[in-house]
Amino acid sequence: MKTIDEFTMPYGVVDKIDAFGYLEELKKNPDAPRKHGKILLVTSDTPLKASRGEGKTTATIALIDALRERGIDAAAVLRQPSMGITAAGSKGGASGGGKSSLEHPELADWGLCGEMAAIENAQNLLASFAEKAVDDGLIDTVLVPRVSEVPSRMLRATVVDRGKANVPERTVLTPASELMQIVVLSRSMEEISERVGNMIAGTKDGKAVLFREFVDLWRITNILTDAVKPVKTQTQQGSPVYLHCGPFGNVSLGIPSLVSVEMACSLHDVVVVEAGYGADAGAQKWLDIACREYGAQWPSFAVIVTRATTWRDDPALQWRYPFHVKHLENLDIPTFPLINLWDGEDGEIPELREEAKELGFRTPIIGNLFRDGGEGIADQLDPLIDAIENHPMPSAVHSHKGMSLVENLRWTAEKAYGVPRERVIFKDGFTDSLLSAARLCKSAGFDITELALLAVKSPATMTDDDTAPADERTVTLKKVEPHTGAGVVQVNLTTSLTTPMPKIV
Amino acid sequence: MKTIDEFTMPYGVVDKIDAFGYLEELKKNPDAPRKHGKILLVTSDTPLKASRGEGKTTATIALIDALRERGIDAAAVLRQPSMGITAAGSKGGASGGGKSSLEHPELADWGLCGEMAAIENAQNLLASFAEKAVDDGLIDTVLVPRVSEVPSRMLRATVVDRGKANVPERTVLTPASELMQIVVLSRSMEEISERVGNMIAGTKDGKAVLFREFVDLWRITNILTDAVKPVKTQTQQGSPVYLHCGPFGNVSLGIPSLVSVEMACSLHDVVVVEAGYGADAGAQKWLDIACREYGAQWPSFAVIVTRATTWRDDPALQWRYPFHVKHLENLDIPTFPLINLWDGEDGEIPELREEAKELGFRTPIIGNLFRDGGEGIADQLDPLIDAIENHPMPSAVHSHKGMSLVENLRWTAEKAYGVPRERVIFKDGFTDSLLSAARLCKSAGFDITELALLAVKSPATMTDDDTAPADERTVTLKKVEPHTGAGVVQVNLTTSLTTPMPKIV
Repeated sequence: MKTIDEFTMPYGVVDKIDAFGYLEELKKNPDAPRKHGKILLVTSDTPLKASRGEGKTTATIALIDALRERGIDAAAVLRQPSMGITAAGSKGGASGGGKSSLEHPELADWGLCGEMAAIENAQNLLASFAEKAVDDGLIDTVLVPRVSEVPSRMLRATVVDRGKANVPERTVLTPASELMQIVVLSRSMEEISERVGNMIAGTKDGKAVLFREFVDLWRITNILTDAVKPVKTQTQQGSPVYLHCGPFGNVSLGIPSLVSVEMACSLHDVVVVEAGYGADAGAQKWLDIACREYGAQWPSFAVIVTRATTWRDDPALQWRYPFHVKHLENLDIPTFPLINLWDGEDGEIPELREEAKELGFRTPIIGNLFRDGGEGIADQLDPLIDAIENHPMPSAVHSHKGMSLVENLRWTAEKAYGVPRERVIFKDGFTDSLLSAARLCKSAGFDITELALLAVKSPATMTDDDTAPADERTVTLKKVEPHTGAGVVQVNLTTSLTTPMPKIV
Repeated sequence: MKTIDEFTMPYGVVDKIDAFGYLEELKKNPDAPRKHGKILLVTSDTPLKASRGEGKTTATIALIDALRERGIDAAAVLRQPSMGITAAGSKGGASGGGKSSLEHPELADWGLCGEMAAIENAQNLLASFAEKAVDDGLIDTVLVPRVSEVPSRMLRATVVDRGKANVPERTVLTPASELMQIVVLSRSMEEISERVGNMIAGTKDGKAVLFREFVDLWRITNILTDAVKPVKTQTQQGSPVYLHCGPFGNVSLGIPSLVSVEMACSLHDVVVVEAGYGADAGAQKWLDIACREYGAQWPSFAVIVTRATTWRDDPALQWRYPFHVKHLENLDIPTFPLINLWDGEDGEIPELREEAKELGFRTPIIGNLFRDGGEGIADQLDPLIDAIENHPMPSAVHSHKGMSLVENLRWTAEKAYGVPRERVIFKDGFTDSLLSAARLCKSAGFDITELALLAVKSPATMTDDDTAPADERTVTLKKVEPHTGAGVVQVNLTTSLTTPMPKIV
């Protein structure tokens, strides 16, 4: 008979790393030996729909397996998949696939070590304290949303204390919560505590009331003790992978925690950072939020993943993939196309290579990553390895702090979505929403132009209608919501539905 | 400088055990060597208020440390503390104290390995599917509650889809959810799946609709994959401790999972099981629900913990402690009083011993467990060790299935609370609530008399007024709520406030 030991395992079959502690130790020992890894940003084409991935995680895993096969010390930093959306049927997991999978993918897909759940509990505790503040007369309107990892359309608008105070509230997805943004962007527990204190709980007579005014912040940070620690696991081929926070680039940041990337950069020569959904979401946020406003390292190179069908099947959308490649190249980031083949598509390779050449791309990396893993692409990596060895470390980039929000939006629409400033349209009510957000910030002691712009949009579109001719595409600005704790201001864009709380299927 | 390894640890610094797998293995190998441990039930006096513990966890830890010091292979099975209530300020942690503490008590107190959070997500996903069923016209009324580990009074009654369908809902504490009850009582993932399928989602034209009718149950069981595995940790002295599920004996079961106890019994000679709040809550539920209806092992002996002040300071409540001791002794369970001293109370020992003698108690175990740990009581354990060595294994007990609910309630009131049947009072509306619950069960294919009675009451009272003279004490029956999945029927008792969703403080 098997003994109890055979049924016993260290929890999670993964390690947890006190990244805050380690980064503090690095800071205290500036002369200690360490690596200064370069960042390879993996992002993707804009997907045809939210539920259809291009294979960013699969490609990230294949890439580090292949780079390590080529003798390079590469590691990956992934975002934690959202279990709730997977369970509800809105999206698959995000732990790779086939030969390009994580070890124990089911663990990554189904809640990891409770990190997302802890963040959910902490944000919901803040909502509970806001409700108590209503009871106590400290606020008259609750602004902080409750959160849920599992979606339901009916949670978008709710009422609590039914039959008595009837307080209106709303619920957003846990990965899209301000607290998740805070955990992704903060570099110490003290910074988290400071930022949570700066979150707006609600208003009293129209003026913002911050959580620091009435909540003991240790209650929140204690819940987060373990959630702030990145997970370390590995691919099925044994390559090192760090997982931590941050999915959903459409409605939130879509990037892993800054500390997990910084820690990885001190331990490995190349750190592959996954940012999604497409380049217009996750990559835009890594560049313009993480790097410009939060001191993250600018990518030294990028890989943009697409599927042959995503890139080419819809003539009206064929402009998007080359747009993304050129956009990153224009930022002086050597950008490698990666085409993730499905079964039966091997025959298309010559045509894909030809088309890439015509478009002036670097030589694309092409493979069936599910079937062949990193092995299938290892011999195509010479140009990437050349860039790794020879491209200089990037320098720091300019912040947009102080730029007006509308100006920042116009800049982003032009650079990231290819829509010039004159075709950025204000929806009815946008100006009011902007003014009222600016007033709310001011009443809390914040200047809205000091907050980083965070675009909230459909993951599957960059403009109001991506199928329109280039000179007719527009971007409509809809609504503004400041997150003074996280230091971002969310702006809903385009006429497409966003999914802060999708239907379940 | 410290290396990254010094900041890295297996997650949770604890082990997780696949108890389902191990128990299955035991069943397949009936002749393999194993232990057949006896159960020592640790429960307590009825606390003066919910936020004031008598020290059950502290006593449990001290007891196993002391028993092991005396050469006995003892282990403890504890319930997972509710992080949410602790964070909200309604109650302290539950990981022992001082010298009688768990290793890494902060881990136990602040979410353990995400078990509670996973159960919360799974039950909330069920609620989301119930909302979808409203959308789809499958049900017209949602009965399954949402759950939250962090409390807020305002969540007791809510509305979802505000401004559109305006669906009334309610939220209960995660530890009090039907899904938590199912995880505590089930012995395999198949049983969990079967029981989740039998949960009532809501009604359509007054008739119950079960989740099995419209939810793919793998969505729920996948979320629970890790949550069903008990945690193994140890006391600061190195004694083995299993932690799994089940706090809040007042509003739910208040006992750890059955599989964690069964697993421990196959590995150790004495298994100390913690059940709370008081003997009238957790112990009553271990005996009358776990043992009578779910095949758990009847305790071979019991320890009832009290504080000198709880037992003696309020003359009107002094009857409760002796009542509990005699009640368990009457059930043929050798019951040892344990008095958990606070600082400055050592001088009271002679008087406490005298009083115990007068009341006909067994010789009490007395110690300052926080200060002295198991060492302080090890030399007082001769009578307990004598019972461990000589008391025969208990035989199975009778089920109450088929007994009418009211009869069962009268029986419980008499045995567990000392109130005779004629003083069990029906509150206005109770009969209607009972009839409608019975009809609801019947429409779902269940007989309400086949469900185990689960009393829901204040943790701090056994009757409508515990300070009334013995011959005037009453128990009022208020409301009935069947949990057909868990196989229990909850009945709210006494006029005291229950706390399915307390205020935060």
